[in-house]
Amino acid sequence: MAGGVGSRFWPLSTPKMPKQFIDIMGMGRTMIQMTVDRFLPICPIENIWVVTNEAYVSIVHEQLPGIPMCNILAEPAARNTAPCIAYAGWKIKQKDANANLVVTPSDALVLDPVAFRGYITEALSFTENKDAIVTIGIKPTRPETGYGYVQSQAATVSGNVHKVDAFREKPDLETAKQYFADSKYLWNAGIFVWNVNTLEQSIRNFAPQIARLMDEMASSFYTDKENAVVGEKFVQSEKISIDYAVMEKHPQVFTIPSEFGWSDLGNWASLHGLLTQDDRHNAAVGNVKFYDCENCVVHVAEERNVVVQGLDGYIVSEKNGQLLICKKTEEQRIKEFSSNL
Amino acid sequence: MAGGVGSRFWPLSTPKMPKQFIDIMGMGRTMIQMTVDRFLPICPIENIWVVTNEAYVSIVHEQLPGIPMCNILAEPAARNTAPCIAYAGWKIKQKDANANLVVTPSDALVLDPVAFRGYITEALSFTENKDAIVTIGIKPTRPETGYGYVQSQAATVSGNVHKVDAFREKPDLETAKQYFADSKYLWNAGIFVWNVNTLEQSIRNFAPQIARLMDEMASSFYTDKENAVVGEKFVQSEKISIDYAVMEKHPQVFTIPSEFGWSDLGNWASLHGLLTQDDRHNAAVGNVKFYDCENCVVHVAEERNVVVQGLDGYIVSEKNGQLLICKKTEEQRIKEFSSNL
Repeated sequence: MAGGVGSRFWPLSTPKMPKQFIDIMGMGRTMIQMTVDRFLPICPIENIWVVTNEAYVSIVHEQLPGIPMCNILAEPAARNTAPCIAYAGWKIKQKDANANLVVTPSDALVLDPVAFRGYITEALSFTENKDAIVTIGIKPTRPETGYGYVQSQAATVSGNVHKVDAFREKPDLETAKQYFADSKYLWNAGIFVWNVNTLEQSIRNFAPQIARLMDEMASSFYTDKENAVVGEKFVQSEKISIDYAVMEKHPQVFTIPSEFGWSDLGNWASLHGLLTQDDRHNAAVGNVKFYDCENCVVHVAEERNVVVQGLDGYIVSEKNGQLLICKKTEEQRIKEFSSNL
Repeated sequence: MAGGVGSRFWPLSTPKMPKQFIDIMGMGRTMIQMTVDRFLPICPIENIWVVTNEAYVSIVHEQLPGIPMCNILAEPAARNTAPCIAYAGWKIKQKDANANLVVTPSDALVLDPVAFRGYITEALSFTENKDAIVTIGIKPTRPETGYGYVQSQAATVSGNVHKVDAFREKPDLETAKQYFADSKYLWNAGIFVWNVNTLEQSIRNFAPQIARLMDEMASSFYTDKENAVVGEKFVQSEKISIDYAVMEKHPQVFTIPSEFGWSDLGNWASLHGLLTQDDRHNAAVGNVKFYDCENCVVHVAEERNVVVQGLDGYIVSEKNGQLLICKKTEEQRIKEFSSNL
């Protein structure tokens, strides 16, 4: 899934080039490239599918030239994750009626891909011949209020697999602290593993409007008419996430409590926490000299030379002629700043 | 005179493109262009001469295409203002033995060019047929410690012309306050008016080493050999300012106390003071949005979009991929910052 239009990392990410297509960590690979990279040892590249907005198809192709163009699906408009996943599922099923799938965001960070693949492999084994959904659960490392949680049963049903009792919305701090103290609660990373029949049947059962649209689209798949039909039908879908549409209703949802250095990299503070810091807690992507600075995070294009003096607790970001200097405590206003330009 | 290699406005100005070639005020004209502009109503452009480092000749030509190429004199190395002025004087004298000259820096600001031309015209009248030097004196508007002063006699000798008693070095604050309270003391703007014979004779009398080099160079002027001869001889000159070499020794130095909105624009603080400020004393050249900021000065290229939030008393400047964020109180360290890159 690569259709997001992030605005929280402006000017690093923009609606024309959202976060999944940016090398946020300064690692030399964009988020979507790193997402694909971590699957390649267990999934041939021709089995990787990307669903994105039609405006981003060329970016996906440019950044991931190994993915067949026909595996890059263009949404004519953003309709949240349920129709996005349904579209991919319906198409994949026409190619392989027994496909076993991992659905993943393309803009999250995984610091330990080896461990990641271990959990994914176990989940795939579990769902291969079973009408079950595995949602990868991340063992919390702090009482985070910015993520949704899955509440699992204490006992395992097989290997590391636990039944999920409930999905929990982003908690307040008090609740987050309770969750953090209780190993049953895991972060919902939005990574789902299921076979294509479970996917299809789940949509039919719990999101019949979407299933109907997909059925109407399906005869056009892999034909000249696909763009026109999808353009007409897809936009009629309700806007709904797969969590609301399916996960919270499905009786057979499981989780594997996992540790693989995950972060959704949802904001500057999380990026700051993940980058290497100097002894005064400054972190930089790019060629940056700090003088008399503390707790700053700077992200600039590699051809830039930056001198920052005398700042404590600031974000500095420059890209494509847009420059932001902003207190870290005010980062929730970045969307306002960028839209006022 | 356009040979300066300013480093105080980095990254706005750089050794490759120093301050005189920059539109520091965001007025659409560079400092040297504005300097020439203010003379054009009283001086035909073919009578304007520029002495600059040979590295800057093409910049001068580009920014001032109306000035004949043979009026752009290339110094093979910086030797301060005395040899610079001597070179121009010796050359001009070969063309016009009775030329009456204004010598001026090319990187200072004049907010009232009409008044400026009035004072210059009076000075030129005074020196036309007289062995005298007029240095334009600026009536101080504050007890400035960053400028040299001229100490004038109270009485006028003609019109607004006063005899100069002495040149005074940059004073300490206490002395500057005394100067400020006494109308005899004027800022030395480095603008000198004299005829070419006075210029030549002054150099001969007070800087004979420079006069000898100029005499050795003179037979090559306006020939194919000029570059080679100047390249060999000019660099042998002592490094000395016209103030030390001539002004402080010459018995016939005069001044006209002047008011024409002058600033040498010597640092970010002076630029900040001259730009239009918002009601929280922020000033910007470029497309800048301030949020929760005070006392900031921002200068960015016009194609940039900048958001600055939560800064009090900072300089922000971006040019050609170099970005500086620095407390105004630390601006004297800018040279250190840029040389450490």
